[in-house]
This record gives sequence, C-alpha cells and structure tokens, in this order.
Amino acid sequence: MKKFTTVDDIQDLDDLLTLAKKIKAAPFAHPKKGKNKTLGLLFFNPSLRTRLSTQKAALNLGMNAIVMNLNTEGWTLEFEEGIVMDGNSVEHIKEAAQVVSQYCDIIAIRSFPTLTDKQKDEEEHVISAFLKYAAVPVISLEGSSEHPLQAVADALTIAEYKTVQLPKVVLTWAPHPKALPHAVPNSFVKMMQLANVDFVITHPEGYALNTEFTNGVTITQDQDEAFANADFIYAKNWSSYNDYGKILSKDTSWTVTTEKMALTNNAKFMHCLPVRRNMIVTDEVLDSDNSIVIAQANNRTFAAQAVLTKLLDNGK
Amino acid sequence: MKKFTTVDDIQDLDDLLTLAKKIKAAPFAHPKKGKNKTLGLLFFNPSLRTRLSTQKAALNLGMNAIVMNLNTEGWTLEFEEGIVMDGNSVEHIKEAAQVVSQYCDIIAIRSFPTLTDKQKDEEEHVISAFLKYAAVPVISLEGSSEHPLQAVADALTIAEYKTVQLPKVVLTWAPHPKALPHAVPNSFVKMMQLANVDFVITHPEGYALNTEFTNGVTITQDQDEAFANADFIYAKNWSSYNDYGKILSKDTSWTVTTEKMALTNNAKFMHCLPVRRNMIVTDEVLDSDNSIVIAQANNRTFAAQAVLTKLLDNGK
Amino acid sequence: MKKFTTVDDIQDLDDLLTLAKKIKAAPFAHPKKGKNKTLGLLFFNPSLRTRLSTQKAALNLGMNAIVMNLNTEGWTLEFEEGIVMDGNSVEHIKEAAQVVSQYCDIIAIRSFPTLTDKQKDEEEHVISAFLKYAAVPVISLEGSSEHPLQAVADALTIAEYKTVQLPKVVLTWAPHPKALPHAVPNSFVKMMQLANVDFVITHPEGYALNTEFTNGVTITQDQDEAFANADFIYAKNWSSYNDYGKILSKDTSWTVTTEKMALTNNAKFMHCLPVRRNMIVTDEVLDSDNSIVIAQANNRTFAAQAVLTKLLDNGK
Repeated sequence: MKKFTTVDDIQDLDDLLTLAKKIKAAPFAHPKKGKNKTLGLLFFNPSLRTRLSTQKAALNLGMNAIVMNLNTEGWTLEFEEGIVMDGNSVEHIKEAAQVVSQYCDIIAIRSFPTLTDKQKDEEEHVISAFLKYAAVPVISLEGSSEHPLQAVADALTIAEYKTVQLPKVVLTWAPHPKALPHAVPNSFVKMMQLANVDFVITHPEGYALNTEFTNGVTITQDQDEAFANADFIYAKNWSSYNDYGKILSKDTSWTVTTEKMALTNNAKFMHCLPVRRNMIVTDEVLDSDNSIVIAQANNRTFAAQAVLTKLLDNGK
Repeated sequence: MKKFTTVDDIQDLDDLLTLAKKIKAAPFAHPKKGKNKTLGLLFFNPSLRTRLSTQKAALNLGMNAIVMNLNTEGWTLEFEEGIVMDGNSVEHIKEAAQVVSQYCDIIAIRSFPTLTDKQKDEEEHVISAFLKYAAVPVISLEGSSEHPLQAVADALTIAEYKTVQLPKVVLTWAPHPKALPHAVPNSFVKMMQLANVDFVITHPEGYALNTEFTNGVTITQDQDEAFANADFIYAKNWSSYNDYGKILSKDTSWTVTTEKMALTNNAKFMHCLPVRRNMIVTDEVLDSDNSIVIAQANNRTFAAQAVLTKLLDNGK
Repeated sequence: MKKFTTVDDIQDLDDLLTLAKKIKAAPFAHPKKGKNKTLGLLFFNPSLRTRLSTQKAALNLGMNAIVMNLNTEGWTLEFEEGIVMDGNSVEHIKEAAQVVSQYCDIIAIRSFPTLTDKQKDEEEHVISAFLKYAAVPVISLEGSSEHPLQAVADALTIAEYKTVQLPKVVLTWAPHPKALPHAVPNSFVKMMQLANVDFVITHPEGYALNTEFTNGVTITQDQDEAFANADFIYAKNWSSYNDYGKILSKDTSWTVTTEKMALTNNAKFMHCLPVRRNMIVTDEVLDSDNSIVIAQANNRTFAAQAVLTKLLDNGK
C-alpha cells in the first residue's frame, strides 16, 4: 500500500482484515515497526474518534504522532495554481505539502467538503494536493468523498459480529438537522461491495448517492422492505447529492426505532458516530444490546493500525 | 484508587504523600509503569500548570499522553438525557465517554462551572457524565466543586515546608476583579481536614463557602486575627457561594501585604496560581523568600504522578 | 550554549554546522541524549515548519515535546512590572516562566512583534521575560527581532549547496501584501556576517533594516546590480523599519523572476517560507531546479537538533 485515501487503495480486503484482527488481539506486538517514524496528523476540521484512534494506532506501533490544527495553528493555505498570492492565503499547498513531507514519514489529513461547491469537493482538492506534492504516503482522515479508515473499521466490525455466511447489511438514511457530507456512506458502499454481504441501501426520494459509488447496488425507498431480515442496520444521514448539499427532508419516520428494528433478523445497529440521538436513532435502540456502535468505534484503532502497518511495510 | 475526582477518593493521605515524596526524589524510577497505557487529557477550559504537569507526570511513568481541547477540536457535546438532538450539540456524552474509554486507559477532564447555574454546577455534570459512562478511571483536572490534584500538591508542599508538628494553616479570601470558582478552596478545605494542621478560614461577609465543605472548620471574618501566629497563608479568591457566582467585594484591605504577613509566625505564602499581583497579594510578598508558590506549582507534577501511579496499580 | 535566542548565542558557527551535518547524516544516533528531558514549545503565533521541525528534532533526541498555544489554551499573560492586575491579564510572566521551568528542561517560544510599538518589540518583551524568569535554557522560535533557528538552517543550506569557496549571497527585499516582521532578515544578516560569504543586501528606498544589524554590510537599492554573479538569492519581504511596520511599496518589479535570476551565476533561490507565489517570486523560479526552499526547510530539523544538542550538553 502506497497511500490510503480511498477504499480503492485496499489491495486485498481479507488480508487487511486478517491483519487488523491480529493487531486487535495483540496491539503492542510490534513496538519497533514505527521506530523513528513520524505520523503527521493535519486537521482542517473537528475530530474525536479519528484524532484519538489514529494517534493511538501510531503510538502502538512505536511511531511519533504530531498533531496540527492547520486552520488555527498554521498558515492559511492556497490551493489554486498560478495565482498571484496577494490575498489572505499565506502559503501554497505546493510548499506546505513538500515541507511536511520533510518532517513526517506519513501524512494524514482531515478535510471536509464545502457542500456548496460540488466540483471543488469532488476534486478532493486538499487531499489531492497533498497526494500530488507530498513525498510520503498520505492517509485520508475523511475527505470530501470518502472516509476509508471508517470503512475498514466498519468491515472489521461486521466480520466480527456476523452470525451467517452472507449477512444482509442495510445502509439507511436517517434524518438530521444539519447538512452532512457523503464521505462515510460513499466509503461504506464501496466497502460493502468488496465484502461478502448482501447489501441494500435505503433512502427517501432525492437522496440518491453519487451513482459512481452505488452502481449495481440494490436501492429502495421503502425502508421497511429494506429492513426485512437484515442482520446489520447501518444508519447515517447525508445531504442530497443531486441537489448538492441541500436538506430535502427531516422526516422522522426514517428514524431508526425499536419498531423498525423488529422488522430485522435481530440486527445489530451500527453508526460511525457522532450520532444525533432521537433523530438518527432512538435512545432505546442505541442503548440496546443490539447496538454495536462503541465496539465499532473501538475498531477504529485497529483499522488505523493495520493501514499504518501496511504503509510502513511498503516504505516511504 | 479507582478514580480521582475529589479529595474523598484519597484512601490514605499519608500513604499518598509518602508516594509523592518518593516520586519527587526519583521521578524516572518507574518508566515501565505506564507502558502501553494512554492518558487522555480533555480540556473544556484554559490550563497551564495542570496541562503541563499532568502530561509530564504521565511521560515520567512511560505513559502516552494525548491532549484534546474538546471545545475547539472536537464536537459540541450534549449532556441531557432523553433529548431530541436537533440543535447545536453533535454528540452525546454517553457515546463520547464510552468512545474515549476505548482509546484511553485513564481519562482526565477539566470542566469549569458556569457560576450561574448552581444546581448544574453542583451536579458536576461533565465529570459525572464521564464517571457514569466511561469504562476507565477518571481524573478531575478541576471540576465545578473540586480541584483535587491541586489539593494533593498543596498538602505535599505544606508537609515539606512545615517546621512544627501542628502548623497553623490559614485559607484567606483575597480580592479579584472577576468571579472565580470554588473548586480550589473547597478541595483545600477538605484536604486540610485530612492533614495534621490547625486550620482556619477567613473571608469577608457573604463569602462563606458551601458548608458541606466547611462544617467543623474555624471561620473568622477578622483576617488579622486569623493571620496571628500562622505558619502558612494560603490566599485565594472565590465568588460568593450563597449569592451564587456574584462578586460582593473587591476590598483591597484583604490583599495579602507585608504588613499582614508580619502578623504571622514568619509564614510561608501559598497560592495555586495563576495569581493576580497586587490584587490577591502584593509584589513584595510574592517576590519574598517566604513565597513558596513556585515550589507548590512544581509539586503538581509529583501529585499527579502519585495519583496516576495509584490508578495504574489498581487497574483499568 | 546556555540559551539560543539570537545568532549571537552561537559560539562557533563552524562547530555548530559540523554538528548539524553529522546529525543530518544520522539523525537517530543519540536517542538517549534527551532521555527524561522535556522541551516545552510555547506558541503565541502560527507556525508550521518551526512547530513540526522542532518537535521532530526533540523526538529524534529522545526528548518529550509538549506543545502549547498560549493564547488559546493558557491564561492571558501580563508582562508589565509592578502593575495592579485588575484587568484582563490573568497571570504574570514572572510566575508563568518560573512555573514552566519546573516542568520543562528547555523552553522554546514564538512571539511575533506588534509592528506598531517599536520600543516594545525591540525590548523583545516576551522572550526577554522568559530569559529573566525561567530557570532553564530558552530558545527563540522567532521573536520580534530575530529568528535564529531559521538562520542556522539557512547557513547549513548555503554550506551544502555552495560550489565556490566564497559564494556571493544576496538578500533581496521582495513585495508582499501585508506588513511583515524583521526577524528573519535580521538573523540572516547576522549569520551571513559570521559565514564565509560575500554578502549583499538589496531593497527599495525606505526599507533599510536596523543598522545595528547591517553595519558594515554592502547595501544597494539596485537589485540588478546586486544579482550580478550571485550564487544565492535569498528573497524576503519586510516592512519598513524606519517608518516602523509600514508598507511603503508593493512594487512588483522587485519580484524575483526568471529574468532576474538570469543575471546571477546560476544562483540557488532561497526563502524561509511561507512564501507568497508570484509576489515574492514567480512560479517559474520557485518551481525550477534552482529553488532549494524545500531542502532549506528540511534543514530546520537538523538546525534545531544541533541547537538542542548543544543546550542539553551544557544545560540543566
């Protein structure tokens, strides 16, 4: 593995999950793997799980982890090529990325989409610029269109909790008061196509994800039908993709409730967190034994540690 | 020790102070004690001493220390139960606390009071929520009502500097331009009741601390009388407790001056810092040889290291 | 070396550069040098290179690095002596500096000038206060008047890239939309007077640097003349020193272009970064093989590591 900014960077999912499971069983088994190596974690946006679990993963491998909030602690970056920099941006990404490469052996970046400028978001301009100019492997800590570390943790969690060979996994849209990005559902959709599952997406009208991700996936606007016999319910809100970044519905009939869960095959409830209680899912479901969101969050460490291991093994 | 959020969590003060002294004499004697253990330091408020000394203490024990400013780097947290999260808060403390428990072996939190909502403050809603939902030991880095790490450093400092068996220790209110919390004086009062000292509190009318803390303690509104023959003067401002969070007086006749110190038995001057010069205490006193505020601050490291040692010894 | 806040603290430049080169060849050769030592990095201002490279340098030596953004994470500091602290500042530098000394073995500080209050800036009030009150060595991470770590990296870079015994080095002013400090050019000027080079400064009228730094240096307002036969072009903007902090010119005829570079002896292009593209220098020059700004930034780590080594060897 030379970079990890999309689920497509996974060469062999079974191999990666096997590694993640091995790491989970013995997280401190390779304290020299990252010796004298530095992971730079660059945040343009808030983070709790990603920030803590990725630092933890690095430390478990004996790496140094240096965290920077680029917006508040660094210089305002310019991403446009050929521009006369006489405005507010102080440093061009060309220099910033190359410079950070001098100090870090792996660079990890979180950069959320604007949700207003679709083209800019789809170009994944921040992470793409780091990929272009950095001399070291780049990890996405969630970009505009993908959150691949989350998807590895999701796949690991499903692998651990599945009780049948081919579990039915449902990704369901759920209501939320603010416009949210598509990165988590997109990467999850890609991941479920790699995994050995029966996968269904359900969402209200107008909430179709980018078809580049969902081509060939079963999609229904009938949530109840989707939930029937499901083994895993993965709830997530996202804003409209076609009517880009817009909130078309806050219909709470899509909230995951005990009644909805009763339609399933005693399904496990999943969410990437943070989750809005009683919007996305009721307290009752989230606090039930079927909820595995905390175990899912715990797997973020081992997902990150597996990815870091792969990148360290394949070298700078 | 299973947690450390109040002075009441100290099982045996002599034992804890003996440990702290031993650590101070050889701070790097147990570099494997914290191996592969992570301390998460979560700040909702500013911090200098607590932030640096607690990190230092963790590093001295070979622990990893991960620091997060929750307000600016993480998600806005919700603390109310059963709420429909359709407002500004993004993540419920239920998930946040459980999730941080997955990545950290000990969680330390600073959360100041509102000083407007007495009930909310007294419920210590942030730290209580972590205690309720976190699966690992919780340390207070100063909550609404207590600052127990400070109190351990205070007790250690008094133990080091006392020249008589039963020193007279005076906690004196002193003026300050802004409303301050009660955490430091509360924990100091509790601590002095555990310690082998002759303890007196002095403050102007209207500044009585919560009687749950001061029951049985000698209290006088005559500062001069309190200072007579004192061996330690501990100055501190706090806002009114009864007229909650209000400033009733900025009377600079309560400022600790050389004249006041002359009433004492050549007393040592203490303060938790940060201290407002020439409000709480004059330059002359603070810069005199009798001031031990820097030594007191230094002891923060060993107090924290003793507490971390106890928590690590008693397990996750 | 007991402190490093100015280029004047360098006792023997050749010796320091030899050490830096040795460190660059084997950065991890002395992992015990900084064992159980803590570097405190205190930032009042943004930083990318300095923040990352100095942390990296400390980690390479086995030191712990604790980073604090004093403005946002700590208490507002008071620097005036004898003041009644009844305003906004919460802690006096006297205590802050002494306290940080208790927790850190070396203190490194970044504090930019006001560019409005010349006297205050020249007194270097923040770093001077740490020097006065801290009990441990102090490093400047860029103060009002000097940026000595940058200057060491600059000298190292010139030493590596020079192809003649006595290279001609030109410091040229270049246009910029915002008022910038004098620290980088000042330290570079001092450093070039220590180094074995033929040194020339060129700037427009009104942009003379403080003559305390430039005494005896060749200065011309004819940029073309300065560039003739140059081996190194070091571009930098600064605001007026005489008309303190003012922008007197944004004359883009001073921008470093391919045409200007053609006047040189195939000179290397240097800049401390961050650099405003197409203001200070054109894309064409910055992206050419003659640009060594990334190698220069890389040397920040080894400059810092050499300085830390000197301080650890002599220090506390």
